[in-house]
Amino acid sequence: MIVRERPSFWRLFLILRGSVVPRILPQIGATMVLSCLVVYWTMDPARTPISITPAPFTLIGLALAIFLGFRNNAAYDRYWEARKLWGELVIVSRSFAREVLTLMSLDADADVLRARQVRLVRKAIAFVHALKDHLRGIKDREGMEPSLASTHTSEEIDAFLRSSNVPNAMVTSLGADLLACRREGLVSEILLLHLDARLNGFTHVQAACERIKTTPIPFVYSLLLHRTAYLYCFLLPFGLVESIGRMTPLVVGLVSYTFFGLDAVGDEIEEPFGLAPNDLPLSAMARTIEINLLEALGEEVLPAPMLPVDYNLE
Amino acid sequence: MIVRERPSFWRLFLILRGSVVPRILPQIGATMVLSCLVVYWTMDPARTPISITPAPFTLIGLALAIFLGFRNNAAYDRYWEARKLWGELVIVSRSFAREVLTLMSLDADADVLRARQVRLVRKAIAFVHALKDHLRGIKDREGMEPSLASTHTSEEIDAFLRSSNVPNAMVTSLGADLLACRREGLVSEILLLHLDARLNGFTHVQAACERIKTTPIPFVYSLLLHRTAYLYCFLLPFGLVESIGRMTPLVVGLVSYTFFGLDAVGDEIEEPFGLAPNDLPLSAMARTIEINLLEALGEEVLPAPMLPVDYNLE
Amino acid sequence: MIVRERPSFWRLFLILRGSVVPRILPQIGATMVLSCLVVYWTMDPARTPISITPAPFTLIGLALAIFLGFRNNAAYDRYWEARKLWGELVIVSRSFAREVLTLMSLDADADVLRARQVRLVRKAIAFVHALKDHLRGIKDREGMEPSLASTHTSEEIDAFLRSSNVPNAMVTSLGADLLACRREGLVSEILLLHLDARLNGFTHVQAACERIKTTPIPFVYSLLLHRTAYLYCFLLPFGLVESIGRMTPLVVGLVSYTFFGLDAVGDEIEEPFGLAPNDLPLSAMARTIEINLLEALGEEVLPAPMLPVDYNLE
Amino acid sequence: MIVRERPSFWRLFLILRGSVVPRILPQIGATMVLSCLVVYWTMDPARTPISITPAPFTLIGLALAIFLGFRNNAAYDRYWEARKLWGELVIVSRSFAREVLTLMSLDADADVLRARQVRLVRKAIAFVHALKDHLRGIKDREGMEPSLASTHTSEEIDAFLRSSNVPNAMVTSLGADLLACRREGLVSEILLLHLDARLNGFTHVQAACERIKTTPIPFVYSLLLHRTAYLYCFLLPFGLVESIGRMTPLVVGLVSYTFFGLDAVGDEIEEPFGLAPNDLPLSAMARTIEINLLEALGEEVLPAPMLPVDYNLE
Amino acid sequence: MIVRERPSFWRLFLILRGSVVPRILPQIGATMVLSCLVVYWTMDPARTPISITPAPFTLIGLALAIFLGFRNNAAYDRYWEARKLWGELVIVSRSFAREVLTLMSLDADADVLRARQVRLVRKAIAFVHALKDHLRGIKDREGMEPSLASTHTSEEIDAFLRSSNVPNAMVTSLGADLLACRREGLVSEILLLHLDARLNGFTHVQAACERIKTTPIPFVYSLLLHRTAYLYCFLLPFGLVESIGRMTPLVVGLVSYTFFGLDAVGDEIEEPFGLAPNDLPLSAMARTIEINLLEALGEEVLPAPMLPVDYNLE
Repeated sequence: MIVRERPSFWRLFLILRGSVVPRILPQIGATMVLSCLVVYWTMDPARTPISITPAPFTLIGLALAIFLGFRNNAAYDRYWEARKLWGELVIVSRSFAREVLTLMSLDADADVLRARQVRLVRKAIAFVHALKDHLRGIKDREGMEPSLASTHTSEEIDAFLRSSNVPNAMVTSLGADLLACRREGLVSEILLLHLDARLNGFTHVQAACERIKTTPIPFVYSLLLHRTAYLYCFLLPFGLVESIGRMTPLVVGLVSYTFFGLDAVGDEIEEPFGLAPNDLPLSAMARTIEINLLEALGEEVLPAPMLPVDYNLE
Repeated sequence: MIVRERPSFWRLFLILRGSVVPRILPQIGATMVLSCLVVYWTMDPARTPISITPAPFTLIGLALAIFLGFRNNAAYDRYWEARKLWGELVIVSRSFAREVLTLMSLDADADVLRARQVRLVRKAIAFVHALKDHLRGIKDREGMEPSLASTHTSEEIDAFLRSSNVPNAMVTSLGADLLACRREGLVSEILLLHLDARLNGFTHVQAACERIKTTPIPFVYSLLLHRTAYLYCFLLPFGLVESIGRMTPLVVGLVSYTFFGLDAVGDEIEEPFGLAPNDLPLSAMARTIEINLLEALGEEVLPAPMLPVDYNLE
Repeated sequence: MIVRERPSFWRLFLILRGSVVPRILPQIGATMVLSCLVVYWTMDPARTPISITPAPFTLIGLALAIFLGFRNNAAYDRYWEARKLWGELVIVSRSFAREVLTLMSLDADADVLRARQVRLVRKAIAFVHALKDHLRGIKDREGMEPSLASTHTSEEIDAFLRSSNVPNAMVTSLGADLLACRREGLVSEILLLHLDARLNGFTHVQAACERIKTTPIPFVYSLLLHRTAYLYCFLLPFGLVESIGRMTPLVVGLVSYTFFGLDAVGDEIEEPFGLAPNDLPLSAMARTIEINLLEALGEEVLPAPMLPVDYNLE
Repeated sequence: MIVRERPSFWRLFLILRGSVVPRILPQIGATMVLSCLVVYWTMDPARTPISITPAPFTLIGLALAIFLGFRNNAAYDRYWEARKLWGELVIVSRSFAREVLTLMSLDADADVLRARQVRLVRKAIAFVHALKDHLRGIKDREGMEPSLASTHTSEEIDAFLRSSNVPNAMVTSLGADLLACRREGLVSEILLLHLDARLNGFTHVQAACERIKTTPIPFVYSLLLHRTAYLYCFLLPFGLVESIGRMTPLVVGLVSYTFFGLDAVGDEIEEPFGLAPNDLPLSAMARTIEINLLEALGEEVLPAPMLPVDYNLE
Repeated sequence: MIVRERPSFWRLFLILRGSVVPRILPQIGATMVLSCLVVYWTMDPARTPISITPAPFTLIGLALAIFLGFRNNAAYDRYWEARKLWGELVIVSRSFAREVLTLMSLDADADVLRARQVRLVRKAIAFVHALKDHLRGIKDREGMEPSLASTHTSEEIDAFLRSSNVPNAMVTSLGADLLACRREGLVSEILLLHLDARLNGFTHVQAACERIKTTPIPFVYSLLLHRTAYLYCFLLPFGLVESIGRMTPLVVGLVSYTFFGLDAVGDEIEEPFGLAPNDLPLSAMARTIEINLLEALGEEVLPAPMLPVDYNLE
């Protein structure tokens, strides 16, 4: 995620990081070159002019506007829903930690209880890191090991990694831990069901993120949108050359910039779990949850919050 | 569902699978042929011209844009709600399996308990397959048999198939199984109510999918939209011929492509439970749930996840 | 509700059932007659022309588009919310039946229990029919009697009909039945509260449907919208006659069709509980719930599902 | 709330009640007078014409359309959310009454129980009236006294009225009553928590209505919208005079009517708790709840439902 | 938040407080100066004219309208969601106070109980103030001290302030207090879980507000929007000069005002937790909650509600 103040007027036009300009430069260039050729052809009165009037462009532009507006809203809704889900993850994690630490048995042995509590909360932290990696298509020990090392054996960690769905295996394992607490008399049945609702919360966040990741906006929309946008921008020089002459390349470039830009932004925002500049800062959010939960456990040494590097927060 | 990367520029215009072009080719062709006739008629100065100015098209285009934009949003909302419901099915299934496996009685006979747990989880898998078939209008043993064979008799499976609503009969049967568990002392009353809430979750997903399947966007909208789109596109040549002459067929074809295309996309997305290229991959999602639940049961042999065939995931 | 496949091209223009054309024909006719008069007047060069340019129509059209788009979305949202509520009614009814049949007391006398269960489920069926009649402004014995006859006395049915709000009286009566079950020891307190939540579900669906029925889109909107649409369409001939001459009546007719049509669709969809062709098929949905619940009770003789008559499902 | 059928064509233009015309007549008049002056000035060829072309008005109209469309949707959303909240109040009140009457203790003294039940339900009725008055900025005995007179002392009523927030004080008092029931053994702890959830429901409806009442759409929007609308309508005569001459005042009046009208509707709908013709019929809705709850109590004498006076339901 | 009646016609144009005019004056001025230069250059027929026709501006304006409309809706949604969250905070706080005061143990020592109740409710008040400060980026004793002073030691307050996330530390501390109540037998386990749900409510409000605060609308949108708006407004004089001549600066200024204004409003509304005139009145809302909760505690001396200063409520 790009984190920076609104830039000043002059800098506004120089920023490239987080902008879509680099991605759409070839297309804009192509439309401008075409415009120059059209202008050159038309300037010689000996050649048959090939222009069409601007009228049809308003008509096609209307359809294109519907497409782009729709696509744009759908993409942003997905982006914002993904962010809301991670906000819910913050809520579920904090609540889970607080409940594990304040609702469990009154008269259990303090050390046994504490060991269970630490194990549960640390596994919740590991779940958050595992979910982040799962959504980014990564599967390695690095993310979860620091949180699990002190309370889990290496075999347990290996078993998670062998699973076809790592974060889901961890929620199942949290369920098994709660069952163990129940067997040891640390939680009553009613509390078990209460804490189980938090695990459902973890499952909810995970499955909803997987939905956003695996189901893009229907391909047929993207296809229709891309085709219309290309046809529109490559026909535009013929529509404008008669009325604005030598200004054609400039105006066509500007129109292409806005339409291709809007299209490219949608592509970027639609699946916000990656590492592109406009994706969500999953690493930073996972770190925040880690700090909150370790602080709730009463740990003294906390990791530092992540900061943006070159305006980019991962 | 079409699963593929954004195609390169040149391929973009050659893709047919997942595109609506094949469906709307006749209409586009008809408008272009009409345009050619209009151009031919108009070119002979001896004949009375039959053109009208482009002005009215902006006015009608406005109404058409409202229709298409509205219809498009409504269709996509239905598509996305259907996907959300299947995401919820993932959540309910995983939670149901975890709860069956970790919340049930502490001191029951291990074998009796295990038999019950396997029966419940396998019936949940069969429910997912039955719901998929129900939404696709299929009613046969194939989908549910593999999941039920080891734990249910052939008569039980026949009874499900005789029911007027197969998945609903399976949820009722899950309720009867939980009652049996209660009678055998495997679940307490409070846990029974907790697990019953999962069955309500299954019923919720099913009834909401049935709603999307049985209630299309009101017929009156489709009628008004189709009529306006046809009238618009077949009058358009008369409106353009005077100002753009021989370019008329090209521009009319392009405008028809966008308007008929947007209309056809709506038709395809509106009821996303079929087997068309842009429908939801119900089979693949059911398989994913099956893998998750068998893994939760600790099964060693898991079916493989489904992969797209020719970019198409069913 | 109109249930039919997308009609072929030629039939598309001949369909009247479910179309709004019959309702708006007088207005369209009026605008076309006016257009003819304006054309006739203008054609005689001796008379002062009374045309205005098309420019102002784009400006007014903009405001009209905002009105129509807004009104349209609001009306469809109401339609779809009403459908969602009936979908929720399916969920609550099925869940209520399953819970009544599988959660109640383990060691009660089987016949007493069965009598109570049948009475509760049959009253739930009667509630659905009563709600349908209530929303359609009907108040008679016919709808609910078949469901109640075997388990309720005629006086009880009369008492329901005397109530100022029949379905609400039935939910209250369901509550009293549950209280009786509690007194007889058939349900524990915790189960009583669980089942009570289903009754709240019935109350929720009812009150939300009543809200849609009693609170139309604010009158001031309809007024502003109707006035603007009429003024627009009756001034339009003066705006077009100069540029398109004899084609004016055709174009004015087409524009009137789309604008008056969109307006009339909103009127029809906004309160979807009636018996008009585009209203919701409450009778068919109530029948479906009846079949589901009787099947859950294990009844052998089930009523047949309702089918569309002349493409119309009531 | 205006309650009337869609008026016939001729009456449509004569209705004033519920219309915004009276409110915006001065502005419309002002723009028309200005138009006449502009036409008068322009007609004398000796004077320098002061017209501008219509082109810029499309550009500004675009921004104005965004503003008006947005404002309109936001205002209607607030109106409809307020109506939903009162629908929820119907649900919570009916459920609360049914639960108080059917879930409370089995073996309590019938008279003591009945007295408590009547007191609770009557206080819920009084809460509804108090909320209505609170939202309308009224604070007197009249609304709540009839409901409370038979079960509460005059001091208790005075205490409510002295509170800084009357309905909130009544919910607190309902909580105290439930505590008294608990002390007398009329409700178990689990039922107490169940009924307490209804009180949260009352608090939810109240706080959400307060939110709508106290937080208007940000002032900066209204300011920007009003300014743009005024500038647009007062510059319009200069843009139209050249092309449509003497028709200018008519067209300017029509455009002003739609834009100022849309703006004024937003003002009226945005805070729907007052007594203006297009506000919500809080009194009628409170009366309906009162009838429902008294009927649930088994009262014989019920107040009559409120009817619209001169098409206006308060 | 600006709190004032709709100003009269003349005052409407003089208001600066709460308007965006001061912020966008430099940009409007720049476009107007440029317009004057363009007019001056064009008026001399000896110089090559540098105008372009207005046609392209409609095309670019379409894209700009999509951007602005989208951005505007997204910003207002964030504003309104933030307000809803604070409304939820009102609900959770009032419910928490009522539950603490009416649901806790029947036979505990009255003084011990009262002390615990006061401590819990006062900490809830302090949480609200702490959340307000947290969202405004302030971290000092002032906000929370008055609420905590009578029931907490200075060390406890210091501990809160040392935490990395002050309001979260206070919710954890509320959990610890409830655990203490449980140990002292003041709350049963089931009530403990019920009250714990309120703490989850506090966590929910906090995390959702943090989400709005930390995740702006993606930077790429702002960039694309600002660039398009600037290019549009600075090219506009060249497009208008030919048709409207000397009126160009006026019209360009007006168009710039609406587009830059809409853009600036979005910037202001998007993150509504600050102290700008159009931000939410967090201080006033926190004060209202404080008054409600102190009144529920039965305190005699209540702070006065906050009033707007110079139309501005903080």
